[in-house]
Amino acid sequence: MAGKVYLIGAGPGDPDLLTVRAAKLLQAAEVVVHDRLVSPEIMALIPAPARRIAVGKAAGLHSVPQDRINALLVELALEGQTVIRLKGGDPLIFGRGSEEAEELAAAGISYAYVPGITAAQGVSASTGVPLTHRGLATGVRYVTGHRARDAVLDLAWDSLADPDTTLVVYMGAANMAEIAARLIAAGMPVDLPILAVAHATTPREVRMPSTLAQIGADLARAPMEAPVLFIIGRVAGLYDTAALPLPRELRAPQLRVVGNG
Amino acid sequence: MAGKVYLIGAGPGDPDLLTVRAAKLLQAAEVVVHDRLVSPEIMALIPAPARRIAVGKAAGLHSVPQDRINALLVELALEGQTVIRLKGGDPLIFGRGSEEAEELAAAGISYAYVPGITAAQGVSASTGVPLTHRGLATGVRYVTGHRARDAVLDLAWDSLADPDTTLVVYMGAANMAEIAARLIAAGMPVDLPILAVAHATTPREVRMPSTLAQIGADLARAPMEAPVLFIIGRVAGLYDTAALPLPRELRAPQLRVVGNG
Repeated sequence: MAGKVYLIGAGPGDPDLLTVRAAKLLQAAEVVVHDRLVSPEIMALIPAPARRIAVGKAAGLHSVPQDRINALLVELALEGQTVIRLKGGDPLIFGRGSEEAEELAAAGISYAYVPGITAAQGVSASTGVPLTHRGLATGVRYVTGHRARDAVLDLAWDSLADPDTTLVVYMGAANMAEIAARLIAAGMPVDLPILAVAHATTPREVRMPSTLAQIGADLARAPMEAPVLFIIGRVAGLYDTAALPLPRELRAPQLRVVGNG
Repeated sequence: MAGKVYLIGAGPGDPDLLTVRAAKLLQAAEVVVHDRLVSPEIMALIPAPARRIAVGKAAGLHSVPQDRINALLVELALEGQTVIRLKGGDPLIFGRGSEEAEELAAAGISYAYVPGITAAQGVSASTGVPLTHRGLATGVRYVTGHRARDAVLDLAWDSLADPDTTLVVYMGAANMAEIAARLIAAGMPVDLPILAVAHATTPREVRMPSTLAQIGADLARAPMEAPVLFIIGRVAGLYDTAALPLPRELRAPQLRVVGNG
């Protein structure tokens, strides 16, 4: 009998920001097919005897092609194993979880999704910069700043240049200078605040507040390790007054243990 | 000495979709100031001796004004208690968490955010409809369909009418017929798929697949209990082929207990 595949979001990096269901499934795992960017703190939750298979999405490294990942998940499930497919963030926001699910369904294999805190929310909670805020942003929008080699950045600039909507750019470090220039050309103010954050919610979190006009120069002077998340909009201006301490500056909170009924 | 306030996202409703940190904090709670729409399953995690104070956001009921909530949080913290402020979804997406934080900061009270799985992600994982999907949606956008009494729905319709972006409307049931008509007027196809979902991830989850042209009539014929979340865009068309079972149709997963080190 074929095993089931759980397409699980690992969230932003802090293991305490896994969902309870994701934590339970990880701690019972037999085989975990994981993105290379899942944090070491989360990888440490996987039981020692479990098999770990790294695939996909390492910055600068050749990644396993999607069709190989799909075939691997099918193969492992057909061996009768319960398979954990662990992705950074959420499997259904820029995670290609539904592409993997299509292949599983085609092979008659049962699957379920477990959502994860997406990077935008992790950055927001860790830094103190909200995604919506009365008078500053009535909504929020997620796009990717990634593009295939030599391809043109194909984004609807006029639509993105909406001062009432927080714009969050995932995987945008390489192209942020161009993105900022295009947003300015589409009418956004040069001093519109940006907050760039890498490794959010982990002890390695790094932040750079900037503006549309300055972000290109700021990143050239102080490059950040990918993946970098950018929050662009008036809400990012709250960083000046409402920034929370970096995770490594916080004392470990004194919490009681979860009782699982 | 003043207590600390935790502004916590309760996620979509399933207690297993709380973050591990949120579950720990709830189970150690002394006083919980909660939205009325937090699910009964999550409220059941709060220890019996803890004080529960219901505020805000009950459909059709008069809610506690935001400035009263702010004052209450300050008052409880000044009494020296650790205060849990529990909100549906995520505190920083349509949750006004950062407004409450501003008041706490002004009163010199320490606070932290704990993110929650936002409703869009809960609906997506539960129904199987992704928020992005190659060839169908390159990004996703969250707006609210709520408006103040007698006010005009003030949304940037031309910008919202982007066939490559999944549009998620929170709190939109009362105005969805108008929203759909406006999107059609702005150029979106009449047969663009919509998935409307209430009580996602709980045993009470209800779903209605529809289209821009039909959603007004469908809701008139079969009203859904607020809050309803709407996923609008090509991805919602995947519901026809990739819908997952309703939560109440799933057998409880056999999971080992979390060991907390």
